[in-house]
Amino acid sequence: MPIIARGLENVIVDTSSICHIDGTAGRLIYRGYDINDLVSLSFEEVAFLLWNGELPTGKQLADLQERFKQERIIPEATKEWISRLPPTSNPLDALRTIISMMGAGLPLTKPNIDNAISITAKISTINAALYRIRNNKSLIDPDQRYNHAENYVHMMTGENPDHKKAEALNKYLILLADHGMNASTFTARVVASTLSDMYSSVTAAICALKGPLHGGAPGPVLRMLQEIGTPDQAEAWIKRELDADRRLMGFGHRVYRTTDPRAEILRSVASVTADRKFLNLAEHVEQTALHMLHELRPRKRLYTNVEFYSAVVMHSIGFPPDMFTATFAASRAVGWSANVLEQVANNRLIRPEIEYTGPLNKTVKPLPER
Amino acid sequence: MPIIARGLENVIVDTSSICHIDGTAGRLIYRGYDINDLVSLSFEEVAFLLWNGELPTGKQLADLQERFKQERIIPEATKEWISRLPPTSNPLDALRTIISMMGAGLPLTKPNIDNAISITAKISTINAALYRIRNNKSLIDPDQRYNHAENYVHMMTGENPDHKKAEALNKYLILLADHGMNASTFTARVVASTLSDMYSSVTAAICALKGPLHGGAPGPVLRMLQEIGTPDQAEAWIKRELDADRRLMGFGHRVYRTTDPRAEILRSVASVTADRKFLNLAEHVEQTALHMLHELRPRKRLYTNVEFYSAVVMHSIGFPPDMFTATFAASRAVGWSANVLEQVANNRLIRPEIEYTGPLNKTVKPLPER
Repeated sequence: MPIIARGLENVIVDTSSICHIDGTAGRLIYRGYDINDLVSLSFEEVAFLLWNGELPTGKQLADLQERFKQERIIPEATKEWISRLPPTSNPLDALRTIISMMGAGLPLTKPNIDNAISITAKISTINAALYRIRNNKSLIDPDQRYNHAENYVHMMTGENPDHKKAEALNKYLILLADHGMNASTFTARVVASTLSDMYSSVTAAICALKGPLHGGAPGPVLRMLQEIGTPDQAEAWIKRELDADRRLMGFGHRVYRTTDPRAEILRSVASVTADRKFLNLAEHVEQTALHMLHELRPRKRLYTNVEFYSAVVMHSIGFPPDMFTATFAASRAVGWSANVLEQVANNRLIRPEIEYTGPLNKTVKPLPER
Repeated sequence: MPIIARGLENVIVDTSSICHIDGTAGRLIYRGYDINDLVSLSFEEVAFLLWNGELPTGKQLADLQERFKQERIIPEATKEWISRLPPTSNPLDALRTIISMMGAGLPLTKPNIDNAISITAKISTINAALYRIRNNKSLIDPDQRYNHAENYVHMMTGENPDHKKAEALNKYLILLADHGMNASTFTARVVASTLSDMYSSVTAAICALKGPLHGGAPGPVLRMLQEIGTPDQAEAWIKRELDADRRLMGFGHRVYRTTDPRAEILRSVASVTADRKFLNLAEHVEQTALHMLHELRPRKRLYTNVEFYSAVVMHSIGFPPDMFTATFAASRAVGWSANVLEQVANNRLIRPEIEYTGPLNKTVKPLPER
């Protein structure tokens, strides 16, 4: 008998050994490791873990670091394509187009780790190129002295990467790299299940990430903090929003019934990178919002989610709001590709049914009678 | 309680009033109308029906025809992008990239019929441009004297469209325009459910259509017919395939328990457009294959599917095999966009769960100990 499940809520599409979310305990686990432990590693190590299921040996890590360095270089023609996209393009539109273009001309192969490395390495370069082109800055080539996060900061800023900023970005990239069956990762698996290629799967995932119900939220958190301006304005501003029944950005999550563990880690990252005044504002807004939410909606148990401190951290390392979701994509590309690899390793076409409730037996009338 | 449903088989994701497939009776219905009745209309009329739920009045049809004529023109810059894609690109990679590029720079709007018209009108022009560029032929601009199918044939061939060919393509485009929750249409709905835009949704659908388990099959049917060569070779060739337990392309469908109604219509289309010798071959191969399949696998009840005569019709109107799936996309774009419009009219984020079966509580060892 068919099962009716709008939005596929509570439907389990498959088993996976990549990512576990324990919403009650507030735990996030990649391949058996707690995110609190992984965050002290490098992005490259965690990418290896998500793709392969095990942490790399020293030799494996050195090899992967070398591959990242080779793969993060983009051809001149690609830079030209980026520069010719309309300057008003959403960075996700640009990323979607350029990843798609990079896949064009490649033979149709089963998705593999080489694809995953190449795409993950290049997204940072594409994002930085896009950011610099639209801000009338000269492009910065990848610098082979730096690891992935350092190089990403370098390509964005053009400077020797500040250690604190690079480490903050490294942690952000690890924390956002995977998160169960979110809509973009699910999209990647649906596309992979047709035996399409890795570039198609990741392109489609970017299409989904663009949606405001999924990847689109870190910008508004920063706008909220900037609108509030000073801690003494927080309560009145939040009250106005709640009175108008508007959703407070940065709080609440479908899965977590306690603070999102990623928010906890990013709060401590922000305490290192954000300037004192902005950090005070963020922490005050967070506390005020949590207090007011618990008072007003005691049953809803709304906690700080990953978007709140993501915005604070991104802002503190100099990444502008219009690059937040594209930077999210630079991280989540690892999870997308890991899920694609898992999907095709034991594939089954993902295709639900839809129930037809429209009319039957209508008769085509000739045009004059319509 | 969660429901485990690998591949989402027998899970109903939503209700829809667009397309009904009665697999037992062999009926396909769009918006209440039987496909056998719709196939005598124009592609534009059926597109209007799928998007709006009703057949157009004379005025509405004239308006839509005019919109198609305006929208099928592509800018010079787009032609240049197409010409600069690697000549070895799969046409679906090209289509994916160009549709994505066309969406870049547009403001994020709720998907609308204007998007649907623009994308549907332009895919034919993109496909024809791609075909002519890689065959070293000069580009043919859309000709405003012709309707959609006539113009498509014109842009491919550079000639005044042959009436029979244009009518064959018109019927093909109507027949393939929608078909329930296939993987690409489902992908489009998942992306739309994040409140992403129409261009993202259609780009993602193309990503899924590229997969050989979904859109990739019409090429092999033609190869089979060409390998068999003459009717007297059919039995031996098919026996060899079946003995080797290889799947015979063009037969069998997940839903239909009788002949696919689209195959019946395309068989009669082929009888008008295909040359007598090729048609005889195709009909003989079909009959031989059905006979042998029923003998060898009596319980499987394999019938001719839409791919078999799609290949015959495409070949008979001069569309080469590497453009088959891209032409399928030119038709299915209507179904994708109609489904996106229905999804966002009453949206709910589509996101299933996945069951974690990996390890827990692993400890990060420092590198030297790994």
